[in-house]
Amino acid sequence: MKIAIDAMGGDHAPREIVLGAIEACRELNAEVILVGDEAAIKRELGNETLVGLEIEATTEVIEMDEHPANAVKKKKNSSLVVANRLVKEGRAAGVISAGNTGAGMTASIFTLGRIAGIKRPAIASPMPTKKGVSVLLDAGANADCDPENLLQFAIMGSVYAEQVLGLANPRVGLLSIGEEETKGNMLTIEAYKLLKKAPLNFIGNIEGRDVHQGVCEVIVCDGFVGNIVLKLSEGLATTLFGQIKEALGSSFTAKLGGLMVKNSLRQIKNRMDYTEYGGAPLLGLNGISMIGHGSSNAKAIKNAVKATIRAISQDVPGKISTTLEKL
Amino acid sequence: MKIAIDAMGGDHAPREIVLGAIEACRELNAEVILVGDEAAIKRELGNETLVGLEIEATTEVIEMDEHPANAVKKKKNSSLVVANRLVKEGRAAGVISAGNTGAGMTASIFTLGRIAGIKRPAIASPMPTKKGVSVLLDAGANADCDPENLLQFAIMGSVYAEQVLGLANPRVGLLSIGEEETKGNMLTIEAYKLLKKAPLNFIGNIEGRDVHQGVCEVIVCDGFVGNIVLKLSEGLATTLFGQIKEALGSSFTAKLGGLMVKNSLRQIKNRMDYTEYGGAPLLGLNGISMIGHGSSNAKAIKNAVKATIRAISQDVPGKISTTLEKL
Repeated sequence: MKIAIDAMGGDHAPREIVLGAIEACRELNAEVILVGDEAAIKRELGNETLVGLEIEATTEVIEMDEHPANAVKKKKNSSLVVANRLVKEGRAAGVISAGNTGAGMTASIFTLGRIAGIKRPAIASPMPTKKGVSVLLDAGANADCDPENLLQFAIMGSVYAEQVLGLANPRVGLLSIGEEETKGNMLTIEAYKLLKKAPLNFIGNIEGRDVHQGVCEVIVCDGFVGNIVLKLSEGLATTLFGQIKEALGSSFTAKLGGLMVKNSLRQIKNRMDYTEYGGAPLLGLNGISMIGHGSSNAKAIKNAVKATIRAISQDVPGKISTTLEKL
Repeated sequence: MKIAIDAMGGDHAPREIVLGAIEACRELNAEVILVGDEAAIKRELGNETLVGLEIEATTEVIEMDEHPANAVKKKKNSSLVVANRLVKEGRAAGVISAGNTGAGMTASIFTLGRIAGIKRPAIASPMPTKKGVSVLLDAGANADCDPENLLQFAIMGSVYAEQVLGLANPRVGLLSIGEEETKGNMLTIEAYKLLKKAPLNFIGNIEGRDVHQGVCEVIVCDGFVGNIVLKLSEGLATTLFGQIKEALGSSFTAKLGGLMVKNSLRQIKNRMDYTEYGGAPLLGLNGISMIGHGSSNAKAIKNAVKATIRAISQDVPGKISTTLEKL
């Protein structure tokens, strides 16, 4: 099975993308197709010749700040659009891009198409917690949602958590502002009624304070809330670690102590590290599309390849479809 | 000016509430009326006799888990309801309660009444940031909002930030999921249009990652999002500090280093400390009502008294009303 990777997408493209692809071939025996500017890719590859690594040459690049829908429509020969097309044509089994998120979603939705019955695809973002990892969705694909969207997010998230993250019988929590069924906004109060009847391990509402406690493996919310939760978590963790670093340089004693606790602090920081999980899949499509963090490095790309392979092997789209039919 | 304090509200009531009232009288020369079970309050007061400290005896208490509206309607002689009534009757100038938040809001809204033109009162929660403090509203009073609600929150938050927190010409940010005017959900996209025309220092959309960076002094969002942001921030900070504490006990070197950096870490933790700000005002009412954190200690109560006195002296309700008229 081949994975198409948009070699031109991301803050550190093509360098880190190509390096990640090399690691994936070496360490995972993966087969990848690097899609992008042939000369640039070859420059990064240097003397590397790897079985299982192909290049698909393209001539256009969608930039980070381009309007997603317009860019996808106009740039038919961009690395992003072609990488998605390879999946549609059966030449690749899944696609990864760390470029313009909106364009990545648009290209995948229009090229791969939605699973029958799925109203809105959603981005399922892995979230490090105190106890391991949860998956939060929607992380930003749909700013406005209806209760049925949230029900479908719960189903898609459960399948992904179980099949790809290996979390058996994942608990599903609805992110709200009170534990009782009657607490929340109009959206979550209605969604609660659908969730409790669905074939899911639904544990009810969870609150903001529970998100990082690992009380459930699947956290369901609309894309507006999900995006704020993700970015807030990233921002707060960065701020706190920044303040700690600063404080540890503030006096001789603190400096000396800081050297002694450095490793312990790094371990905690690593636990929060998104590169461990590689990327966030756009679930609900007839195929696997992985959205990478804009600042993806080689390790993130390698891990995105790993997750993509697993999602394909476990037939995530097929299992989502089967669960939908049980409703 | 006298401040009515619900002596029976909060996880540590009446002890910490009474101690906080004593500190407020001593350190701020405040005049307070402790409202609640007379015997219990006297027991906590011990031999204290303070000029400026009165007791208003009541016989009922609204518990933390009671249904807000029902409890307020039924328990007319509860400490919470009576404390609000003292303001209505002109015997006190403001009210503070750290008890059942929903009941506190209900009692204040029905007893004090809304400022003419204000559609929905909002809880304005102080948020510690990298650079100082911002005020976030609504922090949970209104789960579902319309664009005009958000505009009014922005006005109320600006007045409070300027008059009580002393932040001149406060910048107002609309919490959304992209910087551009066209990014967000239906609510924020419409609210943006109203905010940019209002007599405010509106800086546009901010994202989740900006919340703790201190990019603006007033953060506007609906109460569902606001409540999640607050609880998520509290939860994540607690989790991270918990992990750090654990890591610092993991080896001899880390333990020794931990002792040396203890003070530096405590300083950071203190900066995140809600007790510094005492409580969150319920803005939009004809009077000042301060909602305390359920776990308020004496220091939080003292600081809530301080903020309440300042809000009254600066005539926050009057200034909100004047700004509304400029729209």
